[in-house]
This record gives sequence, C-alpha cells and structure tokens, in this order.
Amino acid sequence: MKTSRRQVLRGALGLAAASTVAPELIVAKPKTGYTHSELDDRLKSGKGLNGLTKADLTTPCLLLDLDLFEANIARMAAHAKAAKINLRPHGKTHKCPEVAHRQMKAGAIGLCVATIREAEAMATAGVKGLLVTSELVGKPKIERLLKLVRRAPDTMTVVDNLAHAQQLSEAAIAAKLKLNVMMDVDPAGRRTGVPAGEQAIKLAEQLAKLPGLKLGGIHGYSGVSAHVTGFEARRNHSTKVMTPVLETYAQLKKLGLPVEIMSGGSTGTYNIDTELSGMTELQVGSYVFMDKEYRMVGGKSGATYDDFNCALTVMGTVISKAYDDHATLDCGIKAFAKDRKFDADVKGITGVTFSAGSDEHGTLMLQNPSREIKLGDRIEFIVPHCDPNVNLYDRMYCTRGENVVEVWRTVGRYGD
Amino acid sequence: MKTSRRQVLRGALGLAAASTVAPELIVAKPKTGYTHSELDDRLKSGKGLNGLTKADLTTPCLLLDLDLFEANIARMAAHAKAAKINLRPHGKTHKCPEVAHRQMKAGAIGLCVATIREAEAMATAGVKGLLVTSELVGKPKIERLLKLVRRAPDTMTVVDNLAHAQQLSEAAIAAKLKLNVMMDVDPAGRRTGVPAGEQAIKLAEQLAKLPGLKLGGIHGYSGVSAHVTGFEARRNHSTKVMTPVLETYAQLKKLGLPVEIMSGGSTGTYNIDTELSGMTELQVGSYVFMDKEYRMVGGKSGATYDDFNCALTVMGTVISKAYDDHATLDCGIKAFAKDRKFDADVKGITGVTFSAGSDEHGTLMLQNPSREIKLGDRIEFIVPHCDPNVNLYDRMYCTRGENVVEVWRTVGRYGD
Repeated sequence: MKTSRRQVLRGALGLAAASTVAPELIVAKPKTGYTHSELDDRLKSGKGLNGLTKADLTTPCLLLDLDLFEANIARMAAHAKAAKINLRPHGKTHKCPEVAHRQMKAGAIGLCVATIREAEAMATAGVKGLLVTSELVGKPKIERLLKLVRRAPDTMTVVDNLAHAQQLSEAAIAAKLKLNVMMDVDPAGRRTGVPAGEQAIKLAEQLAKLPGLKLGGIHGYSGVSAHVTGFEARRNHSTKVMTPVLETYAQLKKLGLPVEIMSGGSTGTYNIDTELSGMTELQVGSYVFMDKEYRMVGGKSGATYDDFNCALTVMGTVISKAYDDHATLDCGIKAFAKDRKFDADVKGITGVTFSAGSDEHGTLMLQNPSREIKLGDRIEFIVPHCDPNVNLYDRMYCTRGENVVEVWRTVGRYGD
Repeated sequence: MKTSRRQVLRGALGLAAASTVAPELIVAKPKTGYTHSELDDRLKSGKGLNGLTKADLTTPCLLLDLDLFEANIARMAAHAKAAKINLRPHGKTHKCPEVAHRQMKAGAIGLCVATIREAEAMATAGVKGLLVTSELVGKPKIERLLKLVRRAPDTMTVVDNLAHAQQLSEAAIAAKLKLNVMMDVDPAGRRTGVPAGEQAIKLAEQLAKLPGLKLGGIHGYSGVSAHVTGFEARRNHSTKVMTPVLETYAQLKKLGLPVEIMSGGSTGTYNIDTELSGMTELQVGSYVFMDKEYRMVGGKSGATYDDFNCALTVMGTVISKAYDDHATLDCGIKAFAKDRKFDADVKGITGVTFSAGSDEHGTLMLQNPSREIKLGDRIEFIVPHCDPNVNLYDRMYCTRGENVVEVWRTVGRYGD
C-alpha cells in the first residue's frame, strides 16, 4: 500500500490517523482558489465555471440558489398577470442588473431603485423604466438625475415638497429636458410623502403646473405594512393606510390630473394590495431572495411566510474549534447586516445557534448539534434581512445544487 | 430690481417669498453632480478636485477629515516610537491602501489584514509586511494564500490548530514555497487561538517541525479588552488576559523556539499593552478613524476616550420635512453599520436624536434643535462603529475644512 505523504507526516508527529477534519481541507494539486478577476476572466473567455462548486469558493460569500430564485420570479410574475397589475420590482433589494434583466424578461415594466447611484448603474446595464423612489434633494443628486434623464428619458422620480419640485423644475428647464415625476403620498408612515387628502391634492395641482416636469402618477409605499405579523393583521394594516392614498389618487383622476400610475406594495402585501382598488403597479423587492425576517411574518398558509423561497444564503467556514461547546466561523458583522434583533439561521443543522458576534467572526453554539461540526466545515445561513445583507457583497455566486454556474455583480453602493 | 425666475414662479403659484429651504438647493448652471468615475478621471488627468467641496458630494457619503486623521497617524507613531514598540496597524478598519501607505510612511513595519481578499488587494497596492490575523482554513483560501506568497514572500498568517497547520505545510511543499506563520494564542476570548500554557507550548513545538512552514512569532489579540469601559478596568482586563499569553511567549523563547514577534493590542489598549513585558508590535486599527463606541470607553483623561480624533463621518441630506417634530434623511441601515445598540451621533447640532430606522432612510427627531433643520440640509454624523461602517462604502472623500481634496477607494470586500 502506497504511504501518502500525509500518513508519513502524521507518523512522524506521532499522531493517530483519525480523521478529525473535513475532507476538503486536504489539499490536492492547486486547482481552486480563484480570485474574482480570475472568475471574471473565465466567464469572459468562454471557459465557463466548468466544474466550479461551492467548495471552491472563498468564504464568507453570498450564494443564490437559481432554482429557488427562478421559482420566485415566476410566481410573482404569474400573480401580477392574474391580478392584472404591472410589476416594477424594487432593485434596492438585489442591486443586481442580472436579476433586473430576469425580472424584465418575466414581464416587469421597469425597475424601482432607491438611489441615483443604483439608477445610473441599472441604466448603464440597459434596464429601462426606472423609478427612483427616494426624493433626490440637493444639487449633486439633481445634476446626476438630469444627466441620467438625458440618456434614459423615461426615468421617473418622486417629489413630496413644492420647493424641491421647483428646484427640479428649474434644473430641468436649464438642461432643456422634461423630467418625469410621481407625487409621493404618505401612507401614515411619516417617513416621506405629502399627507394624503387636501395637502396632496393641492401639491398635485401645483406640480402639474410646473414647467419642465411631467406628472405621471402617485407613489405610496408603506414600509411598515410589509412586516406586520399575521396575514389578516397585515391585510388590515395595508388597507387602512393605503385607503387615504388611493382615495387621493382617485380624486386626482376625477379632477383630470395626469396621474395614471399608482405605485406601491411590498413583498409582504403583494397579494393584499392587488385587492385594493386603484393600484396599477407593485414595487415588490425582497421576494426574489427572501430572509428570516419575512419568514416570520406569516402568510395565507400559516405562521411561516412561505409564498416565496429563501433563495439567498451566506456561506461561512469553521476556522477555529478549540472547544466542544462552540465553533468559530469566518462570518461576522461584515457578512450579515445586523439591523435586526435576531441573527441568521443555520441551514440544514438543528440544535445549534449562531451569533455574528464580531466584525470578522461568528460563533456557532453547539447545544445539541444534529451533526458533528468540524474544523473546515462549510455552513450556509438564511440571512436575517436580505436587502442590507446583499449590500455587503460585491458579487453573488449563483448555484444549481453544488455547482456554481454564474457570478453576478452588485452595483450602486454608497461611495459609487 | 431684476425679478428672478424663481420669484416669478413663486408669484405665479401665489406663494410668499419666504426662504424655507437651504440655499444650496438653488440650482445654478450645472457644475457639480460628479459620478465617481468622473471624479476618478479628474484625478487621473491632473485636473484635481479643483474647487470641489462637501456640498458637491452625493449623499450618503463617507468623509475623512485629513487634519484630524493625520494627527491620529502622528500620535500613534509617536507613542510607538517612545514605547520602543513596532506598529503593524490593522487594515481591517480602513480597507484602504492610501491609509496603509500613510501608516507605513509614519513608521509602520507592515499591515495586519483580516481576510485573504484584503491581503491580496493591499499587496497589489504595494503594501509589504502583511499579517493575516484570521486562520485561513480551507482549500480556496490556502490556494489564494500561496499565490500571494509567491509575489509577497514576507506575508504571514496565523494558525491555532495542528491539522490546519498540516494542511498549510502540505500546500506549501507542493507549491515549493516557505509559508510564514504565527501561532495564535487565545487571550481567554474563546474566539480563536490555542489556549495559553501547555497546549500552546506543545503546538508551537509541532509547528516548528512542520516542513514548509516558518514559525515567526505569537499572535494574541483580545477583542474584548479593547472596549472595556474605564481606563483602569481596561488595564486590569488586558493585563489579566494577556499575561498567560506573554508567559507562553517567554517560555517558548526560553525553549529556543523561533518566536521573535509578539503581536497584539488594540486602539483601546495601545497605551496599556506597551507596558506589558514582551509585546513587540501593536496591531491597532480604529485609531485612524475613531467612532462613538470608542469615545464611550473612557481614557486616561476621563470618561470620554479622546486620545484620538473622530476623523471619520457620514454625511446625509434632509430629503423630506413634512412635520415639525422630525426630519427624514437619506442615510439609514445601508449607510451605518447597525451592530451596536446605539445610533450615530449628530455633529454640531444639539437637541436632536438620530435613528437609522430603515434601509435607505433615517429619522432625526427634533426635540429641541440648536438650529433650524430644513429640507436640503446636510448633516454629518460620528458613526457608531467605524470598522463595519467603512465596509459599506466604496470610497471615502478626504476633506480639509469644506474642501474635498482626495478620494480614496476601499478594497477587499466580501465577494471580491
């Protein structure tokens, strides 16, 4: 029997041949360990990601299960079609042109974005029908908006304040452009938006008169409704806060104002807001990826919101295992957005709890693990909150089973 | 008197000429609104950032006050010199080659990094003397490490486990390289590291015999000590947890093992660990930027830790102001790392409290503001926790007073 170098080493060190580490720690001839630019080169040169598997990836990394993701895309598209409503999904969740293209291919009429950076990047990637859902206040953003509109004239943005609208109007005139705007109406969230009713009617009339602007509709997004726990409670909440917004919309139409679009809705209310009279498009975001927080809000089927699959995961590696009661992984605060009170859920292993306790390290407490946890083990997590989590990664690795089949970049981070 | 277009508009809309918005909302001829690539072009072409000011930046953005930053660099360098200790600052805080170069210029002997990605990026930027302070476990990371060592042979990394060390040994032999390692010893943090004392001595002896590896020292970093509140309590804590590590180090030297380096220390213990016998280098990180969390731990001078300046800020814009009691800004969870229980502090305004409540929005509660807060106002914040906050931005804008004088990129994010 041929004695491997490893066995010789172990013998020399007086160690037993017991296998205490995961097999993939055993280094064969160098084949993996691609940097991102090497992966980009492989993709560009047509070599493909031939044979690349999850085990070849450097952790922490963001994974997207394409089968689950495609089912999410299809399900939302089918729902919108059946409900006869347009989809202009929200790109703030994915920040990814590849995802946007697939949403468009499945019938979306455009893409919502949260920032001017996201808008520019998506326009560069060929995504049309952009709606920037945050008020772009201040000279720098307005300048960038106008530059964008020059190359993407169907881009829309929101206003909730006359003085801001006047600045947009003056800028549009100076640039000799027409700027599409939607009036942002507050569904009692007190975040942005003009209060529904009289104030909104008055502002709409003023907006319609401002030169350089083209009023196209009403925007009313209720972030609070999205995560109300319990389907009935969520339905009541959304109905309650959206009714004044929809009444404003209806009244403006009666007055002959050019408000065709009525945009709103979230992944949590996708099958609620389509029952409300007047909505013309949904700006659902998280459904493509899903997360632990959404699973907890419950749906029509019960306490677990399972209308869409958790397609997104973070993968980490056990890098230190000096004790029996816990393992240290390489995924911490910088790998998971820590804005929720709860941490990520471990996939496929029970009897363990995870805590992303420090910047580059996380702790897996091994209360009663359903399988042995060893140094080198790779562990996948359902993330607490997908939107800010995706924002932490430059790329997502798209998988089918264990195979990595595509690599998609995220765009439009702050500082971009 | 010449009637401005704005006055005509206001007149037409029946509005008073009251100035309710910040003057910079008034758009003059298009001059600003640079995208990042436009700024890069200006810098490359030698045009400089001529006349660019904070008001020209798209928010949210990361700002670095160069005067305060340079004072931090100088102060730590002077301390290390006086204490006759080496500085190998931690790049996980800044992820920025420009910062690393300035640290080297001020006398640092190298740079610590937390991940293989950071190491690669820093090496590409010409930073030498890299020490990767996380255990690089698993084939992908080990392969990338060896590729890096081929071009940066002085790179070191840490081990705390024999089996992992054996994998590194085998990989180094296969690649015909010598891999510099430091033994990671646990200062009772139970995160990574072999326990001090007998287990550490035994591991060191085994490491020293492994072919392909070159043992160079001991690594003992106490993350917990860094933020113990109160200088005396912090001194007691660091002394208590580091003593067994330093005793191990001393004993290994006595046994004739090649452990020259003793690396540890944080910004919180920079003037504590230099009093401990044996430390040869400090891996201080946050001092360059500082944050709210560090200010709260207290120093020699009192309850506010002010040994280093808060040089880093996030700037946001008031984008909606429909109510008197609060204003909505464009900086939320994606602009601030939300891993602490407290939110960012507003700079220069009292009687207000900030909460980064949602992904792209934050709320400024106006309990008793020391100045009026208006739509379009730009507000700067001291961040809660600088390391993960910097990680959220692709670039930082370096300022002197109101002028933006440089733009520095961050590198090595996950997915890179």
